[in-house]
Amino acid sequence: MAARAIDIIGLDADDTLWHNEIHFRASEEKLASLVAPYANRETLGKKLLEIEHRNLRLYGYGIKGFTLSMIEAAVDLSDRRISSQAIYDILDIGREMLVYPIEPLPGVLETLAALRGRYRVVVITKGDLLDQEAKIARSGLGDLIDDVQIVSEKTPEVYERIFGGPEKSARSVMIGNSLKSDVLPAIQAGAWGIHVPYEVTWALEHADEPVITDRFHRITQLDQLLGWLDGN
Amino acid sequence: MAARAIDIIGLDADDTLWHNEIHFRASEEKLASLVAPYANRETLGKKLLEIEHRNLRLYGYGIKGFTLSMIEAAVDLSDRRISSQAIYDILDIGREMLVYPIEPLPGVLETLAALRGRYRVVVITKGDLLDQEAKIARSGLGDLIDDVQIVSEKTPEVYERIFGGPEKSARSVMIGNSLKSDVLPAIQAGAWGIHVPYEVTWALEHADEPVITDRFHRITQLDQLLGWLDGN
Repeated sequence: MAARAIDIIGLDADDTLWHNEIHFRASEEKLASLVAPYANRETLGKKLLEIEHRNLRLYGYGIKGFTLSMIEAAVDLSDRRISSQAIYDILDIGREMLVYPIEPLPGVLETLAALRGRYRVVVITKGDLLDQEAKIARSGLGDLIDDVQIVSEKTPEVYERIFGGPEKSARSVMIGNSLKSDVLPAIQAGAWGIHVPYEVTWALEHADEPVITDRFHRITQLDQLLGWLDGN
Repeated sequence: MAARAIDIIGLDADDTLWHNEIHFRASEEKLASLVAPYANRETLGKKLLEIEHRNLRLYGYGIKGFTLSMIEAAVDLSDRRISSQAIYDILDIGREMLVYPIEPLPGVLETLAALRGRYRVVVITKGDLLDQEAKIARSGLGDLIDDVQIVSEKTPEVYERIFGGPEKSARSVMIGNSLKSDVLPAIQAGAWGIHVPYEVTWALEHADEPVITDRFHRITQLDQLLGWLDGN
């Protein structure tokens, strides 16, 4: 088959280019130990998710907001009894998340190298500005990427603006692990959407399977993108 | 005199378009009451600044990082004895900072209205992405601004990129309350730099007076920009 008419490749970052959610879940496990005298693992999980959801409008996505939500959950679940030392430990958990090494997921490096120069590659990600910039730097992928767009929400309007209007959107594809944030709004913007599921999905990112459309495709690892671009 | 050869007007946001630092200082006063059993006002001020400075590389600028630093200062100064209730109160102080009303400083509204359509007006600001977007929305100034660039650091390279290269930088002016972040790096990028001092300057933003250059100017209120643009 002929190569597809694609000029711009949009890529999600967290859990598409590198592991992210497992670090959040590992931090939640550490938090569970700290609040164990007051709440079991399941109660903590529910409470933390509820607090994250309530704070999302104010804090947005990212590690600093997550740290504040962890502190709130600990204070809340302990009925204002948790020790100051535990709060200090939570601050440390948050800081560790800001510096852990960023390792590209399988297939990412080869794929970006193969795309280089043939397509315009744009990383489109939500989260804290400094945090996301630092992760790209730590990943070592910076030289393989043409542009980075850090946005507060991923709506069809945002994708259309980044791709450069309706005509350019039709020649763009967005790839990511979240149907709700990466795939569906990009398809609504007139682009192609490719889902590359990750082993863990944050509960607030779940979405139903999209309506079947020829603009939707699913791969299991990023390097399968190359075959799809070639029309296979 | 003839109008100056300017196409792009860059404007800092916090303490240039609206009050910002006074909200941080008001929060610090509230924090001082909470830690009063353990430290006096001066000790708190020093400790908080020290912690903010140490965390800046990790947290960047903005209210969430400031809230985390306030919590760390409270735990630290109390020698791990501060109550969980006080921690909760600090979370509340941080959340209030994320929703307070944004009132434009004197002269801002008239000036932006006068610039509209005659120049390309770009707000260039550091801080949390969502936080800064929300402040622009709350300020009601969005329709008077052509573009918003939220950056993690304000370096000469960042200004040159935003203005669109060396030639366009020479036809750009950056206006802000910080010599260190707004005025000096813009001048280094080849643009004009106008200082509009604010009543309070964050200790980490102090810089020496710049070398005298005809690319530097100082005004006391934003509406004086209009006369300068006209060559007066």
